[in-house]
Amino acid sequence: MSEIDVLVSEVGPRDGLQSSDSIMPTEAKKAWIAAEAAAGVLEIEVGSFVPPKLLPQLADTGEIVAFAREIPNLTVAALVPNFKGAENAVKAGAHKITLPLSVSETHSKANLRKTHAEVLEEVRRIVELLDTLPAGQRPAFEGGLSTAFGCTLEGEVAEDTVVRLARELIELGCDEVGLSDTTGYANPTQLRRLIRLVRSEVGEDRLTGVHLHNTRGLGLANALAALEEGITTLDSSLGGIGGCPFAPGASGNIVTEDLVFMLDSMGLKTGIDLDKLLEVRRIVADALPGEELYGFTPDAGLPKGYGRGGWGVGAAA
Amino acid sequence: MSEIDVLVSEVGPRDGLQSSDSIMPTEAKKAWIAAEAAAGVLEIEVGSFVPPKLLPQLADTGEIVAFAREIPNLTVAALVPNFKGAENAVKAGAHKITLPLSVSETHSKANLRKTHAEVLEEVRRIVELLDTLPAGQRPAFEGGLSTAFGCTLEGEVAEDTVVRLARELIELGCDEVGLSDTTGYANPTQLRRLIRLVRSEVGEDRLTGVHLHNTRGLGLANALAALEEGITTLDSSLGGIGGCPFAPGASGNIVTEDLVFMLDSMGLKTGIDLDKLLEVRRIVADALPGEELYGFTPDAGLPKGYGRGGWGVGAAA
Repeated sequence: MSEIDVLVSEVGPRDGLQSSDSIMPTEAKKAWIAAEAAAGVLEIEVGSFVPPKLLPQLADTGEIVAFAREIPNLTVAALVPNFKGAENAVKAGAHKITLPLSVSETHSKANLRKTHAEVLEEVRRIVELLDTLPAGQRPAFEGGLSTAFGCTLEGEVAEDTVVRLARELIELGCDEVGLSDTTGYANPTQLRRLIRLVRSEVGEDRLTGVHLHNTRGLGLANALAALEEGITTLDSSLGGIGGCPFAPGASGNIVTEDLVFMLDSMGLKTGIDLDKLLEVRRIVADALPGEELYGFTPDAGLPKGYGRGGWGVGAAA
Repeated sequence: MSEIDVLVSEVGPRDGLQSSDSIMPTEAKKAWIAAEAAAGVLEIEVGSFVPPKLLPQLADTGEIVAFAREIPNLTVAALVPNFKGAENAVKAGAHKITLPLSVSETHSKANLRKTHAEVLEEVRRIVELLDTLPAGQRPAFEGGLSTAFGCTLEGEVAEDTVVRLARELIELGCDEVGLSDTTGYANPTQLRRLIRLVRSEVGEDRLTGVHLHNTRGLGLANALAALEEGITTLDSSLGGIGGCPFAPGASGNIVTEDLVFMLDSMGLKTGIDLDKLLEVRRIVADALPGEELYGFTPDAGLPKGYGRGGWGVGAAA
């Protein structure tokens, strides 16, 4: 993170493809990941170690992780729903694994078919596994608090539950926790409050990333609020594809292209070349002909005379 | 403004309809304005006093102003391109008039067919006219600095030009200036900087509103940044219709529905009933069958169990 201000973590190959009606061919996934890394994206969640029967779209995650590991300077992340998934992620060589824990227990049962206690038991076993690995082979382990801002099944969730679960995840041995607006319910005020509450419980360095959706159009406003709270990692999806297949009506990751345009125009370093990033969109569009791609910047194009180092700065008196 | 935190100023009947391919019937405009006022919207820019030959879509502005004036508690605003337009606005009884002055002189010539000096001369004559009116009949007069964040023709614009023009407008007798992101080029950092620069020149109470576009998806992030700088009036358009017909490629006002959802969920008072507001959309959709309506909240609906006074607050420990 030394040369960048914000880490944009691309989650399209996982969060996007898992809810796609069609299955993207393995070669197209590789081309996408390679092109996005070449555009300067430094972290990509490339898949999920779930049973292929449940998500055939991600059945090739092992192969994709092995491929992506060969790309220089890329952090290869993967989702794991349970201990078995973590085992497979470790075998494949993922640099980072994230286990989702839904703050709404109703959603947890629907999504992972597990109670909080059962998910936390998986976390304990995963940490046990990771502790047996040599230092160089141990992936970073994040507990992702999904439905942290409300649930399409339960409605509002209690903030003290979010804080308690964050503490338990860290106590069990997660390196970090993340906050996920799975349902697109978050607003800037709520997001700021929850970031502060969780950080005051587990420490600032244990919560550095958030996963936001654009379901109600507030995605980038929430991203801005998170940045202002000191969050340095933002998840997004190329073309805004994906969302949560088990939360009805909740769709729409924030769009990587629009997010990077915002950060770049604000003068924040992401390491990403916007022109190259915009070109990656074609790969995804060609490989997912039935899928709607979102995003405003790709349609509108960059401002006339757009350069590097922040828009409007050069025009100051 | 005593009972609200943020004034949402609906500009759809002017900024939206002026770039529409079809002409909305006068009765439909009246139904829209009445319904939106009934939903609690306190200020609506209902039209523009331009020659009907140039914008036949707004040829009935005089009649619309007269109608809207009869709605209790509604501030009726209108755009005026020049002295003649201001005369007509005064005759019709508009409560507020806004004259756009494009910071990009190239855009000014294309949009209003006038140089800066020529626009400022119109401002001087308008103030002269307003000064002859009895206090109760004098409309508020705003100078709207368009293309303040960059121009599709010129690219970046000099911030000292924005500041200088703001000062000249106030010195000539405008009550307020506004900043307009006509082209959708603004980012939160630039917006904050420019708000501070202009306010330090003309005073805080002389810049209370901004007009933002969502052309590159940053509309609500910019709105949030403006709020945090103390801006209290935000322009938006129902369904996000409109933009600027003379700035090619620049379209997309911020969507009133999404803006009000953001403000409401943050616990900020707007006086607007979200459910009623969402219903107004039907009137616009029916009256403009060819027009695409934007907005995420209308599609996604409100969060489960959504109430009043801010989302997530009731869920605090």
